[in-house]
Amino acid sequence: MNAEALSSPRLADADALIADLGVRARAAAKALAVATTAEKAAALRAAAAQLRARATEILDANAQDMAAGQEGGLTSAMLDRLRLDEGRLGAIADAVEAVAALPDPVGAEIDRAIRPNGMELSRVRVPLGVIGIIYESRPNVTADAAALGLMSGNAVILRGGSEAVRSNRAIYAAFAAGLAESGLPADAVQLVPTQDRAAVGALLRAQGLVDIIIPRGGKGLVARVQDEARVPVLAHLDGINHLYIDAAADPAKAVALAVNAKMRRTGVCGATETILIDRAYAAPLAIVDTLVAAGCEVRGDRGIAALSPHVTPADANDWDCEYLDAIVSIALVDGLAGALAHIDAHSSRHTDAIVTEDAAAAERFLAEVDSAIVMHNASTQFADGGEFGLGAEIGIATGRLHARGPVALEGLTTYKWLVRGTGQTRP
Amino acid sequence: MNAEALSSPRLADADALIADLGVRARAAAKALAVATTAEKAAALRAAAAQLRARATEILDANAQDMAAGQEGGLTSAMLDRLRLDEGRLGAIADAVEAVAALPDPVGAEIDRAIRPNGMELSRVRVPLGVIGIIYESRPNVTADAAALGLMSGNAVILRGGSEAVRSNRAIYAAFAAGLAESGLPADAVQLVPTQDRAAVGALLRAQGLVDIIIPRGGKGLVARVQDEARVPVLAHLDGINHLYIDAAADPAKAVALAVNAKMRRTGVCGATETILIDRAYAAPLAIVDTLVAAGCEVRGDRGIAALSPHVTPADANDWDCEYLDAIVSIALVDGLAGALAHIDAHSSRHTDAIVTEDAAAAERFLAEVDSAIVMHNASTQFADGGEFGLGAEIGIATGRLHARGPVALEGLTTYKWLVRGTGQTRP
Repeated sequence: MNAEALSSPRLADADALIADLGVRARAAAKALAVATTAEKAAALRAAAAQLRARATEILDANAQDMAAGQEGGLTSAMLDRLRLDEGRLGAIADAVEAVAALPDPVGAEIDRAIRPNGMELSRVRVPLGVIGIIYESRPNVTADAAALGLMSGNAVILRGGSEAVRSNRAIYAAFAAGLAESGLPADAVQLVPTQDRAAVGALLRAQGLVDIIIPRGGKGLVARVQDEARVPVLAHLDGINHLYIDAAADPAKAVALAVNAKMRRTGVCGATETILIDRAYAAPLAIVDTLVAAGCEVRGDRGIAALSPHVTPADANDWDCEYLDAIVSIALVDGLAGALAHIDAHSSRHTDAIVTEDAAAAERFLAEVDSAIVMHNASTQFADGGEFGLGAEIGIATGRLHARGPVALEGLTTYKWLVRGTGQTRP
Repeated sequence: MNAEALSSPRLADADALIADLGVRARAAAKALAVATTAEKAAALRAAAAQLRARATEILDANAQDMAAGQEGGLTSAMLDRLRLDEGRLGAIADAVEAVAALPDPVGAEIDRAIRPNGMELSRVRVPLGVIGIIYESRPNVTADAAALGLMSGNAVILRGGSEAVRSNRAIYAAFAAGLAESGLPADAVQLVPTQDRAAVGALLRAQGLVDIIIPRGGKGLVARVQDEARVPVLAHLDGINHLYIDAAADPAKAVALAVNAKMRRTGVCGATETILIDRAYAAPLAIVDTLVAAGCEVRGDRGIAALSPHVTPADANDWDCEYLDAIVSIALVDGLAGALAHIDAHSSRHTDAIVTEDAAAAERFLAEVDSAIVMHNASTQFADGGEFGLGAEIGIATGRLHARGPVALEGLTTYKWLVRGTGQTRP
């Protein structure tokens, strides 16, 4: 029995289903917008407790998804993303509790001014409203996204991947049970009750009902969502990230940062994919050798390939490739200007870093590289909401509007202007 | 000869034209992103000087547009928006100079933190990149949008209405001459060189070349842009604004605010369109009578219509109507809860206000009304970037993402995260 067999019969009217979910979400969002921090945190703690209490059911559901996935030929990487165990489920519950402990962004004052006529102006954060989350195999997203959405005062509509449908339903049921204890509206978090793809299309077109869509998954999913959506999308695209080793780099830092940025975890979006080395840098071979010794395949331009028999010649595609694997492309460049030109041409504008002891070079790199995250003497693997102190993240936005880089609670809010007067009329 | 006759022959390939403008804008944007405040301000002052120096040419061009418009049957309201005279042109130049004097948002630090591992994190404002402005008859938008775009470090692609094509070209030529004196790239501000509608479609689809589209004009234009665009849109929709007179309103303030909010200028988006009066308020007739005496048509619900023979009965459409005229709809409501329910059902979420001396009622209204601007004891006519101290505005955003309410220089920026380390690797 495959996952699709669990879903509802094909919908006559996906739009009607999504409209119903949307109207209920909008009503819930109104209550959530004025819920107190304590109410939201209590709901999340209750949800975390239910996730722990229902561990057996959730792990059973996950075992069924795993069995169906193995039978259906999912890759081992996909199966690993899908798999839950007691440790992973405990981490999911921990994460929900951690979100409950984060500062509530709603009601925070962004700025305040008094106008010459005496009117007081302030901007305060308010929830976005209704958030649609479309995601793939990782079942933890069900709890993570629900927790971040709820804590920021938003109603959430979740639509997970078919391969994780049983796991998602079990996690959602636990979350909903916690929510029910809290007194916040049940429709604050809804799971689309069908795996019919038509429902995804309807969600993407639900202007006025859904305020923002956040896709969580691979390139294919994100591109499809961006292409079809009429609702605004907060998207996370590729991480084709660069580490530039300047002539004035400290060699020990250069080697340590190159290995960490590439090899700590190769499948994360903050992993470095291309290393650029200044032709004037003294010790490029040590970088190549250390990477090779760490198990990394090195694809080099002519200058790098000449350094070591372990280097494969890179072709033109290598400079635009997000390997997400133990592979790195390395090129020699003509100093900082050469690095900036290469990055401008090839970066996906996610995270790029410079290694140098030259403060002026570092500041120029920070100023001129137009990426969501620009680093000096730090590993690109730090590109992460938790590492940035945001507590959690719903994703790393690679667009330029609304929010950029790691998006957490603040990124799920907007603001309104409050004007307090004493009867002022405009002349 | 009508305006279209001035435009280029129908394009074989509007996409190629827009791609060319977009590539040039992108290159200019890179230079603008690192231009100093002094350089940008000098360019704007030079542009303002050119606008003054070329007054005769600009007014001649405008006279030709006016003649063509009269012949072509433009309404008197449209002709008034189109018309320039020495005073209006002087005001356009003044506005450009005023933008030059505003604080530069680029490089401003939003926040800063030091992580436990010693990494310094900061978020700094950077330009959005390339902004497309699509507008209708008002030729002042050519200079206003160019000035706001340039000062915020963005390249701008302008596409004005056919009825103003000669005026726009003359204003653009003056602006470009000022820019040329400054040393900033000429492609920082470009005017689409054809009135062919296909170029608008191409601009709306120019993903990757244009970062945001801002429509400036009536509902029809904005709706068409939102419908067709694949590039993100910062849109300004209706201002169906409410003024709620609470039982605890001061009667003198209530009358003064009602008349000002509705009648100061009826054609602006901050004008009140519906007045809600608490059934328990003591003096509703004074509000009706003062509005009637001020020349306003009053359309009332049954309770209001019973007060005065000058009231026309409202029909169901009146509660969802942006009159932009000397017409107001007035309804009696059951206290604050009734007002909140009416506003939730009918407000376009632009600007809504309460008149009351009851501080608790005011705070509840400010908290619960989900509009871009929510006011207490102040006229909705203050909904304006200049009045809010922003110096100027590119529009009032009614969406929820990126920027909300009056949008000025800050709204034309995004941010990037800067990480300054000393060799930190991620464990």
